[in-house]
Amino acid sequence: MSEPIRPQLPEPTVKRLPWYLSYVNSLAERGETYVSSTRISKALSVDASQIAKDLSFLNLRGKTRIGYEVDTLCSVLREFLGFGQVHLAYVVGVGSLGSALMRDSGLSKYGLQIIAGFDVDDNIVGRKDLGVPVYHLDDIDAEMQRRPADICILTVPAEAAQEAADAAIAAGMRAIWNFTPYRVKVAEGVVMANTSIYAHLAMIYNRLRELKS
Amino acid sequence: MSEPIRPQLPEPTVKRLPWYLSYVNSLAERGETYVSSTRISKALSVDASQIAKDLSFLNLRGKTRIGYEVDTLCSVLREFLGFGQVHLAYVVGVGSLGSALMRDSGLSKYGLQIIAGFDVDDNIVGRKDLGVPVYHLDDIDAEMQRRPADICILTVPAEAAQEAADAAIAAGMRAIWNFTPYRVKVAEGVVMANTSIYAHLAMIYNRLRELKS
Repeated sequence: MSEPIRPQLPEPTVKRLPWYLSYVNSLAERGETYVSSTRISKALSVDASQIAKDLSFLNLRGKTRIGYEVDTLCSVLREFLGFGQVHLAYVVGVGSLGSALMRDSGLSKYGLQIIAGFDVDDNIVGRKDLGVPVYHLDDIDAEMQRRPADICILTVPAEAAQEAADAAIAAGMRAIWNFTPYRVKVAEGVVMANTSIYAHLAMIYNRLRELKS
Repeated sequence: MSEPIRPQLPEPTVKRLPWYLSYVNSLAERGETYVSSTRISKALSVDASQIAKDLSFLNLRGKTRIGYEVDTLCSVLREFLGFGQVHLAYVVGVGSLGSALMRDSGLSKYGLQIIAGFDVDDNIVGRKDLGVPVYHLDDIDAEMQRRPADICILTVPAEAAQEAADAAIAAGMRAIWNFTPYRVKVAEGVVMANTSIYAHLAMIYNRLRELKS
C-alpha cells in the first residue's frame, strides 16, 4: 500500500479536527462503538456535511446508517493530527508564560516535547527548576548542532520577538509558534502559527463591554 | 461630550489591533512621535487602507503626511482593547495548564487578574503555592457571591469541559475562555472565546510534514 495522499489541508479543517477528536474520545471512554456525522454535528454545532467533508481528507468515510467506528476515528484523527508522534521544541523567552508552558506537562500528550529553554537574562539562564536546561540565546546554534528541535515556542517580550525569531530560524529551526502580540515575519518555507492570547482577551473584554452597555 | 460610538467590532479587526499596539509601543520606546499607516503596513504586512479602516473604529484618523501621533495611538489602543482596566477571572481546572496560567504574571499587564482557582481533585483543592486560593468547584456559587469574577478560564480535561462551563455560567460568570480542545456550547449572551492551542499544534505538525515530504 502506498502512503495516503495528503492534500494541503484547509486551516478551518485543521481547527475542527481536534474538536472531533476530543468528542469521539469522550464517546470511546463511555464504550460507544459507532457514531454518525449527524450525532457529531449535534454535539459540536458543525454542519454534518462539513464533518463528512473534513473527515474525507483523512480518507475516512462513514458507513450508511451506522456511521464511523469510534476507535478507528480516534486513532486515525490522533495520528493524522500528529498527536501520536514526538515533536521536539525549544522555548525562546523563559519569562512567566514561557516557563509556564515548560511546566505544562499536558502538551506532551499532544506530541510536543520541550527539550530546552533560551533567554538573554543572566538571572534566568541556568535555571534548574524547569525540568529542562535553560541556555543563553547566543548558544542556540551550538545547541541546534547538539540536540536539534524543529519548533520554536516564542514567548519573549513583543519588542524582542522579531530578533529572537530570526535567531531561531538562522540556527535552523523550521517552525515558529508565536505567543507574543508582535506580528513576526518569516521567510517562505518557515512554518508560522500565531496563538493570539492577547487578541482573545481583547475580544472577551470587548464583548463583555457590549453586554453591559 | 457623549461616549464614543462603539459599533460591534469585526473579529479580524480585534485580532489586528494588538499587533498595532505592540508595534506602536516599540516605536514609543524608541522615542518616535509620529507614524504613518504606510509604515505600520510595511512593518506588519497589513494593507495600509485596512489599517486606516481598523483605526477608524476607534475614531482615530491620521493626519495627512505625518500620520498618527504615537503616544495617542498607544493609549487609545490600550484603553480600547481593555488592557488598561482590571478584569477579574477564575481558573476552572487547576491542572498543568491552569496552574501555569495562574503563575503567568504577564496576563495582568493585559488587564487580567486571576483571583481564584477551582478544581474537583482533593489533592489540588487548597493548594497554597499559586498566589491565589484554590477551591472545590462545588463552591463556585458561594465564591461568586463573595468575590465575583466575570471571566472563566476553562482548563479542565476535554471530557469535563461542558459540565464545568455549565457550572461557571450557572454561578453567574459571563465569559468562557476555553483552552480545552472540546467545543463548549453556551447560551446566547455568554461570551465565548476559544484558544485552540492543540489546533495550532496540529497545524504546525501538518505544515512541517508537508515541508518534509
